[in-house]
Amino acid sequence: MKLDITKAAQFLPAGTVESYEPAVNAAMKALEEGTCPGNDFLGWLHLPTAITPGFLCKIKACAQTLRENCEAVVVAGIGGSYLGARAVLEALGDTFGWLKASDIPRILFAGNNIGEDYLSELIDYLHGKRFGVINISKSGTTTETAITFRLLKRMCEEERGKDMARKVIVAVTDAKKGAARTTADKEGYTSFIIPDNVGGRFSVLTPVGLLPIACAGFDIDALVKGAQDMEKATDISVPFADNLCAQYAAIRNALYTNGKKIEILVNFQPKLHYVNEWWKQLYGESEGKDKKGIFPAAVDFSTDLHSMGQWIQDGERTIFETVISVDKPEHKLEVPTDEENLDGLNFLAGKRIDEVNHQAELGTQLAHVDGGVPNIRISIDRLDAYNLGQLIYFFEKACGVSGLVLGVNPFNQPGVEDYKRNMFALLNKPGYEAESKAIRERLK
Amino acid sequence: MKLDITKAAQFLPAGTVESYEPAVNAAMKALEEGTCPGNDFLGWLHLPTAITPGFLCKIKACAQTLRENCEAVVVAGIGGSYLGARAVLEALGDTFGWLKASDIPRILFAGNNIGEDYLSELIDYLHGKRFGVINISKSGTTTETAITFRLLKRMCEEERGKDMARKVIVAVTDAKKGAARTTADKEGYTSFIIPDNVGGRFSVLTPVGLLPIACAGFDIDALVKGAQDMEKATDISVPFADNLCAQYAAIRNALYTNGKKIEILVNFQPKLHYVNEWWKQLYGESEGKDKKGIFPAAVDFSTDLHSMGQWIQDGERTIFETVISVDKPEHKLEVPTDEENLDGLNFLAGKRIDEVNHQAELGTQLAHVDGGVPNIRISIDRLDAYNLGQLIYFFEKACGVSGLVLGVNPFNQPGVEDYKRNMFALLNKPGYEAESKAIRERLK
Repeated sequence: MKLDITKAAQFLPAGTVESYEPAVNAAMKALEEGTCPGNDFLGWLHLPTAITPGFLCKIKACAQTLRENCEAVVVAGIGGSYLGARAVLEALGDTFGWLKASDIPRILFAGNNIGEDYLSELIDYLHGKRFGVINISKSGTTTETAITFRLLKRMCEEERGKDMARKVIVAVTDAKKGAARTTADKEGYTSFIIPDNVGGRFSVLTPVGLLPIACAGFDIDALVKGAQDMEKATDISVPFADNLCAQYAAIRNALYTNGKKIEILVNFQPKLHYVNEWWKQLYGESEGKDKKGIFPAAVDFSTDLHSMGQWIQDGERTIFETVISVDKPEHKLEVPTDEENLDGLNFLAGKRIDEVNHQAELGTQLAHVDGGVPNIRISIDRLDAYNLGQLIYFFEKACGVSGLVLGVNPFNQPGVEDYKRNMFALLNKPGYEAESKAIRERLK
Repeated sequence: MKLDITKAAQFLPAGTVESYEPAVNAAMKALEEGTCPGNDFLGWLHLPTAITPGFLCKIKACAQTLRENCEAVVVAGIGGSYLGARAVLEALGDTFGWLKASDIPRILFAGNNIGEDYLSELIDYLHGKRFGVINISKSGTTTETAITFRLLKRMCEEERGKDMARKVIVAVTDAKKGAARTTADKEGYTSFIIPDNVGGRFSVLTPVGLLPIACAGFDIDALVKGAQDMEKATDISVPFADNLCAQYAAIRNALYTNGKKIEILVNFQPKLHYVNEWWKQLYGESEGKDKKGIFPAAVDFSTDLHSMGQWIQDGERTIFETVISVDKPEHKLEVPTDEENLDGLNFLAGKRIDEVNHQAELGTQLAHVDGGVPNIRISIDRLDAYNLGQLIYFFEKACGVSGLVLGVNPFNQPGVEDYKRNMFALLNKPGYEAESKAIRERLK
């Protein structure tokens, strides 16, 4: 993985990035020593190198059981219990895989919304199918996921029988407490633990992400290896100028301080769409607090050059771009020649499609930088499990450092509770009697 | 359709929205009289009421031919030749329809990226399938779409024979000029016209959107009827206070002038995801120029309450939300009771899932307004073709008005050319010799 910040730094006074070295080093030290705000949620920091082959074997064995007994597996989870797995699955999967025959179960996501139509259409599909469920919830009472699990558990038991349901329902939850843990123990489900000190948005390398990814048949050994290598490459012992996480944390804070309020994560590979979504949660939820933080946005190019491209080129100069560039595609396809050349494309004939894409990428970088948009470029060799593992850990660690430099606690999310509290009050949840009364008064 | 701006106006000094009446009325008048900047692109303004039953019949007949002869139809187009059709298809379709048997052809989208893997995986799926193509391009030389069409035309001819290919390839293009028109005439394809005076992002109610939508089996009569009714309801004769487009244009300009730089379009129905994407192009490309314009962003709630929710609740107070609320779902599903109630959800037992969703929506509105986020609410009865038609025309007309009030030409997109020019120079496109030389010098 490479990181090029020169086309962003050129928008700042000379020496600006370097001036962040003390703050970044202090943040790295506070993370390492566990002295920062949110230090009860630092389990992700040395997680990759703590993962053992035995642990991965247990995940793979469970995935194998699901694969043997299911043609569809529903992953029930929301937020950090959803986006990481989906990001990796879409990045590594076949774009049109839904339409192709497969001996790997279809991995479907639910429990991340409260859509009556969504759930009805899901259930309609699952009827008569050999399906299983991976229920991912620390507490087991997150509304979206709990409603979905209640529906699917009952359906699985009714359609496949209690014994088979016990085999194909897996819990990823707290070690000891909570509704999902109680249910898992009582029913005898296979279960995996979400460590107490790993927050949702940092949990993709725990069973939260690894089990669905293994279930879909992707290489979790390579994914973890990539993360391990990145953990070492961005260790506190690696100096500021050579440390990718330090550099990314420094440049984005420098840009923010200099009026760049929106960071747009850009890909040129449609499969990276959900990596961008995962990144939005990681950075938005970590930094968007205390009335500050870069607003995270995302685009898929060249698609969105024909939608957001105009704004990026000519709108308010308060944005910067971070591009994830993939050096090589996984397939091979050339632009064919055409004798008549009515479309005038013969100048591209014989070229790889990906070469055209890379020239679009370079042309876009030049145009946007010329237009006043600082550009950060992250490049990886290939879109494979190993590189994704690198990318995931890179973004996690840089996020922790960046949030600390910003001066927030990057590991909490107090604002997420506000809508829930109102919702529970409106729905008369037991224990919310006072809130219910207050909110009804207010709505009169 | 209803529009409630009270929870946004409360953040502004009294009388602010009303103070926009003269500017909004002037913009409406300039649109109506064709005296505004970009007045050669006002064909969308009275388009709905100009659509005849005979025209819709011709679209439906073509769709029927495609349906009878294809199990898959690839819609090749980018930007405005892509997002409108996709928005309507996803809003009206079954979320898990890909996995269910269907006698309607699968509608696939391509030509909106330059992904070697994307195109390879598409071609892999299409091999041996009875597929057709709707090629949507004004010029026929837009790189993304032209490469895709070149690949698919050849494949369709090889696999299905020249005669069948002529039957199942349809062109939506310029009336007279351009590569796609020449090819269509030469090959004898059925073709439809993109009017000269309708820009891409305003084209969903032309064959650009209507043909794919009809092909997927949705009710284009109802869609057009909805748009017609909204055209009448937002006519220049309808006074400012009662005119939904006038009100939306006024409030968003007022918020922008008062420091709200980002508008987040919110839905509580996952199926609206691509309506949000379509809206981002419509507003971003229309207003993001001359170093100004609201930055359009989008979220799917409650999913993204667990990713962007924290930022929205507690980040910089430079945002406002516009919520699309759907009153009633299309399916019926209740939260089941559970004797053991381990998940503590029995307080919801017997409630419709959608009721929970609506309380989440209300709870979120209260929380975000309390947190300092102005809230605009658009509500429709149902997510059906008629209501979507209303919504589409509402957003189009409000966009034209809003851009004029902002003081830009809402109907051009000069910034989209910049990356293309660089890309063509880098790829040595004939006619770009001077640019090629210059850009290579620069990259030395």
